[in-house]
Amino acid sequence: MQPDGTEILATAHEMAEAARAAILPHFRSQTLSEDNKLAGGYDPVTEADRAAERAMRKVLADRRPQDAILGEEYGAQSGDSGLTWVLDPIDGTRGFVSGTPTWGVLIGLTDGDRVLMGMVDQPYTGERFWGGFGEARMTGPQGDRPLAARAETPGGLAGAILFTTFPEVGSPTEAEAFRAVAEQVKLTRYGMDCYAYALLAAGQVDLVIEAGLNSYDIQGPLGVIEAAGGLVTDWRGGPALQGGRVLAAANPAIHRAALDILAAFPE
Amino acid sequence: MQPDGTEILATAHEMAEAARAAILPHFRSQTLSEDNKLAGGYDPVTEADRAAERAMRKVLADRRPQDAILGEEYGAQSGDSGLTWVLDPIDGTRGFVSGTPTWGVLIGLTDGDRVLMGMVDQPYTGERFWGGFGEARMTGPQGDRPLAARAETPGGLAGAILFTTFPEVGSPTEAEAFRAVAEQVKLTRYGMDCYAYALLAAGQVDLVIEAGLNSYDIQGPLGVIEAAGGLVTDWRGGPALQGGRVLAAANPAIHRAALDILAAFPE
Repeated sequence: MQPDGTEILATAHEMAEAARAAILPHFRSQTLSEDNKLAGGYDPVTEADRAAERAMRKVLADRRPQDAILGEEYGAQSGDSGLTWVLDPIDGTRGFVSGTPTWGVLIGLTDGDRVLMGMVDQPYTGERFWGGFGEARMTGPQGDRPLAARAETPGGLAGAILFTTFPEVGSPTEAEAFRAVAEQVKLTRYGMDCYAYALLAAGQVDLVIEAGLNSYDIQGPLGVIEAAGGLVTDWRGGPALQGGRVLAAANPAIHRAALDILAAFPE
Repeated sequence: MQPDGTEILATAHEMAEAARAAILPHFRSQTLSEDNKLAGGYDPVTEADRAAERAMRKVLADRRPQDAILGEEYGAQSGDSGLTWVLDPIDGTRGFVSGTPTWGVLIGLTDGDRVLMGMVDQPYTGERFWGGFGEARMTGPQGDRPLAARAETPGGLAGAILFTTFPEVGSPTEAEAFRAVAEQVKLTRYGMDCYAYALLAAGQVDLVIEAGLNSYDIQGPLGVIEAAGGLVTDWRGGPALQGGRVLAAANPAIHRAALDILAAFPE
């Protein structure tokens, strides 16, 4: 059976609205609570994170109980439709606790082989980016707009804008690979969390390179970018559905140029 | 004669409104034009940058022709009031051309010894942060709020959030000094341009460390932060009015802790 795109997109928007309502009272709140999920590491998990995932799961329980769910906070729930919703209620929790508007609510829908629909929502700025079932759109302070990744990057790598979240970018080898690309581009920017992928889909950015991602970090952005004409693969050109090392590119030529550099580094 | 704070704040708000109207049609526009102001470097100056400074100068010509002006785009204009408006129409032009909402319109008013009033405006998110003449406030998606920097940083440096724009942070020595502080803190984030100073005034961030700033890069933020209870100095604890190496801190204890590290590095 073909998935009902209209119903799925409406469900995703309702989930994003529910997540916004759950999160915004906590954003820049002085009473924000944090946990350290990883002993010794710094991985803040806020009340907002959990409340937003619960709110999204409630929408799914009401509208699409047949679908499976994989969420960052509450794990996996099985379904019998063959479809799985992949949720990161707050991607970019470090940005969230710092007050930056670069974190986002990530919603992806996958059939296991590919992402059918992706959504990136930024509650504070009121921006939402989504793609799938023939749509690629955003809404925000400038109104509703179609999304289209840059069809070409004038000057190739030498004219490209590259984003990543951390200058460290994973392991030392991964950081070295990243820097090898960064040395070739016009401009490298940091710290944007999932917002960088949204900007790529919106035609503002040519490349996003990251490592160490989970499936729920990438499936929402991947759906948006592919619908907007961009590409998301791993650093060998294979599928990026499961996260790991990710290369997002606005067009095939700039994707190839970055891949040629990244592929020279060992696994 | 005492400056009229009410009139000055009203003028600053009118300038920020004028700058917003001039800039927003260019933001995320596909026809954005860029120049290279520095031969060989990358310093995009957009139509928006120039149009915004012209719009702000027009407000001043109408309301406060007696004041001097120092603007990033159109230089110095003399006055006879003893007050100078220090303007950066778009601070964070690299962020602007990348589509991030981290650039800002910076407005400062100085008597030459100190900053009497500062304002940081983010037109796309609709956020404005200002301080001076007994006020320290912001307005944005969550409404009007008072601004207050963190009165203490629990855990000191080990509990602090540190921001800077570039991981490179100026010269190799300056980068080394920055890293010496970064190694001590809980969380370091990059890429926020002037938005980082606004977050410090809003109580979200403990430290911002930058180098190579111009006076128009810092006077607007400095006015906001001092009004919100924070401190802005150079890396020796002296005045930061003229830019250069800047240390902004939420409270005296965290300022001292960062200064103790930075002061160990040569000029």
